[in-house]
Amino acid sequence: MLKVGIIGVGTVGASVANILKDNKDIITARAGIEITPTIGVVSNLNKDRGVSIKLTDNIDEVLNDDSIDIVVELMGGIEKPYEVVKKALEKGKAVVTANKALLAYHRYELQDLAGDTPFEYEAAVAGGIPIINALRDGLTANNIQSIRGIMNGTCNYMLTKMINEGVDYDTILQESQELGYAEADPTFDVGGFDAAHKLLILGSIAYGIDAKPEDILIEGIENIAPEDIDFANEFNYSIKLLTIAKKVENEIELRVHPVFIPNSEMIAKVDGVMNGVSVIGDKVGETMYYGPGAGGDATASAVIANIVDIARRGKGSPMLGFESAHGENLKLMSKDNIQTKYYFRLRVEDKPGVLAKVANILSDKNISIEKMIQKPLNDTCAHLLLSTHTCLEKDINEALNAIEETGAVTAKPVMIRIED
Amino acid sequence: MLKVGIIGVGTVGASVANILKDNKDIITARAGIEITPTIGVVSNLNKDRGVSIKLTDNIDEVLNDDSIDIVVELMGGIEKPYEVVKKALEKGKAVVTANKALLAYHRYELQDLAGDTPFEYEAAVAGGIPIINALRDGLTANNIQSIRGIMNGTCNYMLTKMINEGVDYDTILQESQELGYAEADPTFDVGGFDAAHKLLILGSIAYGIDAKPEDILIEGIENIAPEDIDFANEFNYSIKLLTIAKKVENEIELRVHPVFIPNSEMIAKVDGVMNGVSVIGDKVGETMYYGPGAGGDATASAVIANIVDIARRGKGSPMLGFESAHGENLKLMSKDNIQTKYYFRLRVEDKPGVLAKVANILSDKNISIEKMIQKPLNDTCAHLLLSTHTCLEKDINEALNAIEETGAVTAKPVMIRIED
Repeated sequence: MLKVGIIGVGTVGASVANILKDNKDIITARAGIEITPTIGVVSNLNKDRGVSIKLTDNIDEVLNDDSIDIVVELMGGIEKPYEVVKKALEKGKAVVTANKALLAYHRYELQDLAGDTPFEYEAAVAGGIPIINALRDGLTANNIQSIRGIMNGTCNYMLTKMINEGVDYDTILQESQELGYAEADPTFDVGGFDAAHKLLILGSIAYGIDAKPEDILIEGIENIAPEDIDFANEFNYSIKLLTIAKKVENEIELRVHPVFIPNSEMIAKVDGVMNGVSVIGDKVGETMYYGPGAGGDATASAVIANIVDIARRGKGSPMLGFESAHGENLKLMSKDNIQTKYYFRLRVEDKPGVLAKVANILSDKNISIEKMIQKPLNDTCAHLLLSTHTCLEKDINEALNAIEETGAVTAKPVMIRIED
Repeated sequence: MLKVGIIGVGTVGASVANILKDNKDIITARAGIEITPTIGVVSNLNKDRGVSIKLTDNIDEVLNDDSIDIVVELMGGIEKPYEVVKKALEKGKAVVTANKALLAYHRYELQDLAGDTPFEYEAAVAGGIPIINALRDGLTANNIQSIRGIMNGTCNYMLTKMINEGVDYDTILQESQELGYAEADPTFDVGGFDAAHKLLILGSIAYGIDAKPEDILIEGIENIAPEDIDFANEFNYSIKLLTIAKKVENEIELRVHPVFIPNSEMIAKVDGVMNGVSVIGDKVGETMYYGPGAGGDATASAVIANIVDIARRGKGSPMLGFESAHGENLKLMSKDNIQTKYYFRLRVEDKPGVLAKVANILSDKNISIEKMIQKPLNDTCAHLLLSTHTCLEKDINEALNAIEETGAVTAKPVMIRIED
């Protein structure tokens, strides 16, 4: 029998305990051994957790119990769980975690600490979708060209509602909070940080690249307005908060931001709270993985898959996908050097010469316009919605600053990247 | 160094040899060991295979070479590769195959023969999509409720063209043959047999159910006519050749046939030659896996993923997903007991009393009509297109026979199931 201790018995932890009980027969048949959750750690023992395992508020009861083979870490936070996981590994216990923030900051240290002890984290990325499994074990023949993920269900739910039903940002945010899809302070989700943590993990598996959240471009969905939705509908785009990892020569782009993406792309069809991850490999082409990115049972499904794998095979694949150093010397690309297509929304005074000013600035920066719509806003102002051909992020930022400085715009320009 | 012998150096075999060479650096970094294809077996040594490995026409050169660790079987056929693979396993060599027909007939014997020797077959189902990996290792926490797959690219390409562009069956079949998507004798693809082989493999992993192709319901796409396409468009359905594995109490449905499926379902959005597999687990809900189901490089990507896994971890997960017997005594459901919704197309004489006859027969069998369209065909005939609420396959078949016997129809009724 394999004994599991669960540190953190919230929604996911309770699901792990309950599924191991509910689906015990099939899990035992698959694993070849009985897997039993024996103890859970909570901070408040007075709260009912809906589980039948023993509860304690003392982590050491798990860490110091030599009969416990696997520690499931579901505490949340970064430094505290890092210390706990470290101790568990030192005691020779296998660790399974769903903690993306922990991995966003400490994955390489954890890989070193774990050594030959199993350390798994399928649930940390895209919830119930076995994407770590697919990327780390299923696509090993490929040089990964790009990964594009919809990995935050809150944002995807909000954007789907905005684009399908014309609901505005503030209304849908409030609705999402009422439905429990968004937190009271929604920044972590709508600001792109949650998705960024997941992206960094995938970036390591695909490219062996070490980066922290503060190293990469992260923008949220807070500035998306009805005009942008109109532009998307006009030109057959969806708007998605996309995580992008892309190899360009010896540099790796890692970025999270909203994009316009053609409706014809498979990843653009991932709607509502669902997650999707599209991976392009040089040999296999595009594969995509779709499913629930959150929820107690879905996340627990991924946690238990890791436990079963440890039960069956012991040490897994190399934790971050590489047994030895990646041959190429890959570097994180500077934000300035990103090249893509861009859309921007300018609120301009409706008078002669304004378009000329804007056009001259773009021309000076060698930025070529692909599509343009001007829409009157009121008697004195109009919205100018533009999209460009591929150009350099640095040039776009400089151009937008220059446009702002001319005084031709009456609000800060809004820029959204286009993923074509 | 791990040495690989490739038996059968056609498109896929050549891709395996070439990718192991092209992507050697990244594959070595991922596997932790150099993987080298050293020899390939072909029947005709005079044909150029576009590979740089040594070629032989003598299988024993691979089987008797003790330095070869892994045999990749890409011969095609059933009994011949079975004997070859058996010998390789007896010599203690790991085996990787892409041969779905071999597995459709011999997977349980092969599991016994392999024992602790790695035997893998990711490429046998849905080509480059790591679906075996996902289902066998990523969803182990779940009782699988259903699997619905689009696993034949030829059929999906044809159906997509028929529904999107109104091309008729014969025209698109010919075009598919010219493009190399369909064989000169297309029966294996369009008749549903190729998809059925793959379904049987997934059925084993999900349910531990042993069945052969002749045990299950297999229908092809040959009878789909423009009227059916019109019906689909009218009611927002796609038409897909779907493989279905579904658990209903203690019985497992395994079936392959065209279906009407609502456009809103994610699996209905899998178009063209692409494959997709949707899996519903009791805990995770729906996950879907999408990608190329065929092609040399895509298939080789899956073959190599298995080789890397063997290099990293030796013995894999239990070959067919279960370490010990499935607790429930699951049986294959009789075709007669399938329950779903149905559509049928009746070519009827355009005269009084015909609809009454049809309606009475349906009523006698307790079959309730959901939608109906009648379209005049010429002066004397009309098409009656009907869909039903959920009913029993046996009742539908008896009703259609009874309708045919009345003489009210001027052509054999065509029935298509609806997956709602």
